[in-house]
Amino acid sequence: MSTEYWEEEIETAPRSKLEELQLQRLKKTINLAANSPYYKEVFSQNNITKDSIQTLSDIRKIPFTTKVDMRAHYPFGLVAGDMRNDGVRIHSSSGTTGNPTVIVHSQHDIDSWANLVARCLYMVGIRKTDVFQNSSGYGMFTGGLGFQYGAERLGCLTIPAAAGNSKRQIKFINDFKTTALHAIPSYAIRLAEILQEEGIDPQSTTLKTLVIGAEPHTDEQRRKIEQLLGVKAYNSFGMTEMNGPGVAFECQNQDGMHFWEDCYFVEIIDPETGEQLPEGEIGELVLTTLDREMMPLIRYRTRDLTRIIPGKCSCGRTHLRIDRIQGRSDDMFIIKGVNIFPMQVEKILVQFPQLGSNYLITLETVDNQDEMVVEVELSNLSSDNYIDLERIRKNITRQLKDEILVTPKVKLVKKGSLPESEGKAVRVKDRRDNKS
Amino acid sequence: MSTEYWEEEIETAPRSKLEELQLQRLKKTINLAANSPYYKEVFSQNNITKDSIQTLSDIRKIPFTTKVDMRAHYPFGLVAGDMRNDGVRIHSSSGTTGNPTVIVHSQHDIDSWANLVARCLYMVGIRKTDVFQNSSGYGMFTGGLGFQYGAERLGCLTIPAAAGNSKRQIKFINDFKTTALHAIPSYAIRLAEILQEEGIDPQSTTLKTLVIGAEPHTDEQRRKIEQLLGVKAYNSFGMTEMNGPGVAFECQNQDGMHFWEDCYFVEIIDPETGEQLPEGEIGELVLTTLDREMMPLIRYRTRDLTRIIPGKCSCGRTHLRIDRIQGRSDDMFIIKGVNIFPMQVEKILVQFPQLGSNYLITLETVDNQDEMVVEVELSNLSSDNYIDLERIRKNITRQLKDEILVTPKVKLVKKGSLPESEGKAVRVKDRRDNKS
Ligand SMILES: [Zn+2]
Ligand SMILES: [Zn+2]
Repeated sequence: MSTEYWEEEIETAPRSKLEELQLQRLKKTINLAANSPYYKEVFSQNNITKDSIQTLSDIRKIPFTTKVDMRAHYPFGLVAGDMRNDGVRIHSSSGTTGNPTVIVHSQHDIDSWANLVARCLYMVGIRKTDVFQNSSGYGMFTGGLGFQYGAERLGCLTIPAAAGNSKRQIKFINDFKTTALHAIPSYAIRLAEILQEEGIDPQSTTLKTLVIGAEPHTDEQRRKIEQLLGVKAYNSFGMTEMNGPGVAFECQNQDGMHFWEDCYFVEIIDPETGEQLPEGEIGELVLTTLDREMMPLIRYRTRDLTRIIPGKCSCGRTHLRIDRIQGRSDDMFIIKGVNIFPMQVEKILVQFPQLGSNYLITLETVDNQDEMVVEVELSNLSSDNYIDLERIRKNITRQLKDEILVTPKVKLVKKGSLPESEGKAVRVKDRRDNKS
Repeated sequence: MSTEYWEEEIETAPRSKLEELQLQRLKKTINLAANSPYYKEVFSQNNITKDSIQTLSDIRKIPFTTKVDMRAHYPFGLVAGDMRNDGVRIHSSSGTTGNPTVIVHSQHDIDSWANLVARCLYMVGIRKTDVFQNSSGYGMFTGGLGFQYGAERLGCLTIPAAAGNSKRQIKFINDFKTTALHAIPSYAIRLAEILQEEGIDPQSTTLKTLVIGAEPHTDEQRRKIEQLLGVKAYNSFGMTEMNGPGVAFECQNQDGMHFWEDCYFVEIIDPETGEQLPEGEIGELVLTTLDREMMPLIRYRTRDLTRIIPGKCSCGRTHLRIDRIQGRSDDMFIIKGVNIFPMQVEKILVQFPQLGSNYLITLETVDNQDEMVVEVELSNLSSDNYIDLERIRKNITRQLKDEILVTPKVKLVKKGSLPESEGKAVRVKDRRDNKS
């Protein structure tokens, strides 16, 4: 494992130093934000002044900012800087309904962003001598320009292939001897398939590093990509509201994504109560920009569920690590007072080769009590032996209880007997009398 | 008209100064190029050394480089710099057949390119306070990243809208108050139509400047765009082999495109003989990069037909101006010893409102003599009066003779009687016994 750093001093800074920098930048961020119409009003309503923040935990005095707030102040209500003179780029997320969320960047913001992406790529061993191909869509989607500017900053020979046209992607890989590729996980697998179709051993290319993100995936899928293409594949976390890519990224240990705490302040909250959760517990990721000047975001509720991985990373970086995203806080349900995310259930189920991938959680009221029923389809690998099945069922039940602290009723059902889901799977049906 | 310049000293340099700079950069370029496998061989075969170039016209000692040469040395045979360490970006043209042409850039090259695009945009009055929306495709197509980097360099608030999704383009224009838009001409007209469909007066938007290029169009189309959208529309000339956009661009006089001669050496040649043509004559544009380090191109035959516009421009810029592209040299034919381009014929025909847009040139042998027949469809506006039609026919014949120095046989035919062309129109049928 490489112990080289893009910016050693900041990446390996002692926590106390890092937190000192965070506090200083948080104060500056709040001062800047106060120039935006939105935060001016929020601060005024909550009596936030520049003296309100004396320690990092004082951030809790400030209310959360949500996607709904951003849309309500579309397009520029959160812009704090002199957009007319200093704004150089707008990105927006493609809202499926209503107005998109809009982020405006200054040159400082673009430079800071490019530097963070370069830091991520360097961390996984990508160097200026690498050939970096980006199969993201470009334009407003931040995976395009975000990786483009970052890889150029690092000094890679970049190939802005953009999305689609798999045969051309493969031609570029072969002809330009691409060594590092950014792709969404499903597309990485597709490329391996096409290589095979074209009679090329997918492990024989010059590719050695893959950057995967922007799409939920399991560690099993990552391992599959690594095996298929003979590469190391690293998880990338980002979102348009936080620039795009470059927010958190795996190091070569592949054990959680380091969050760049010099540029982001991280909180994990209970999505129901808004309270801070202890390290290690799954909750909603709440983020504050610490190095964005044109449009700071404070305590932005990402709706992404994850947890902070406890302990130090052996790579030497002191910046905290988050686990892969465990789903959306919108998907959370509460049963017997416990917050549960479908991802937690799924995580257990995928470990059983006897199970298929289709499952359904049903919440019911039985004798005025909440009941949780987990139905899961058997795979082709499953036994017909009733005793075997019962043993598996009990095993699943026990493991689920360990994970979610509630004992569900587990039912193993025949393959194809649960409703097929098109697009986003509906995993939870709440049939309780009094939904909480 | 603005008399401000992005780089006054270089834009208004006396010709002698400019040519001095060109000579110095040409020598440097040839020294650099000698490091590429391709030019090393070309120079060696033609006894070109660094002493071969004493004056600018010594460039004629060096053979032309063609697209065929580039493809034959695909992908990196023309790379002169240390691509592994210093290469930061690859662009390629999407060849419809065979290998694409590939251009590799260093950081210097990207910076120089961005500066030239900024110079173009500044020339037409775009300032850092403008909101610049780019409806180009991004990725390998240079209109995307080329204008992105240039407009950011200028300090505009950029909107990397990318191609397609017209309703979203219009939403951006309205919501972000876009003042400058880059679009291909047909798409600019399409946007005006969609604005109308949505009940928005196309002249009522905040748009004031359009940058149009990448697609052949007439001055009539430009005027139509200006009128429809209530903007000024400026022609842009560029090609991937010469970076992309930023090569030549109209100033606010809209009378030819200034060619940035500090970065490009321009020749206009007879496509048949390769000889230099006098100023003002239409021929093939041949270009040499003067400020590209990773992959210089020397005497590149663009296959684009144009002419140098004689005389000085009142904007104060001393860099030569070229006329809009008159077609492709591949389309040229020779009759009675004269080089003729279909565009020359078309230019005359479009001036007659009585004519439609479909025409066909047929070359025949009659009594061992070359004959040129121009058939052109009448429009709905045409008269039924034979005397009127005969007068028009004679008028067209006379004007064509003035333009091409050959007297064609002109036939006016009914609308719809010529073969409909799908895609690229076949304008010339050569039925001569001995095609020259
Ligand atoms: Zn680590
Ligand atoms: Zn001018």
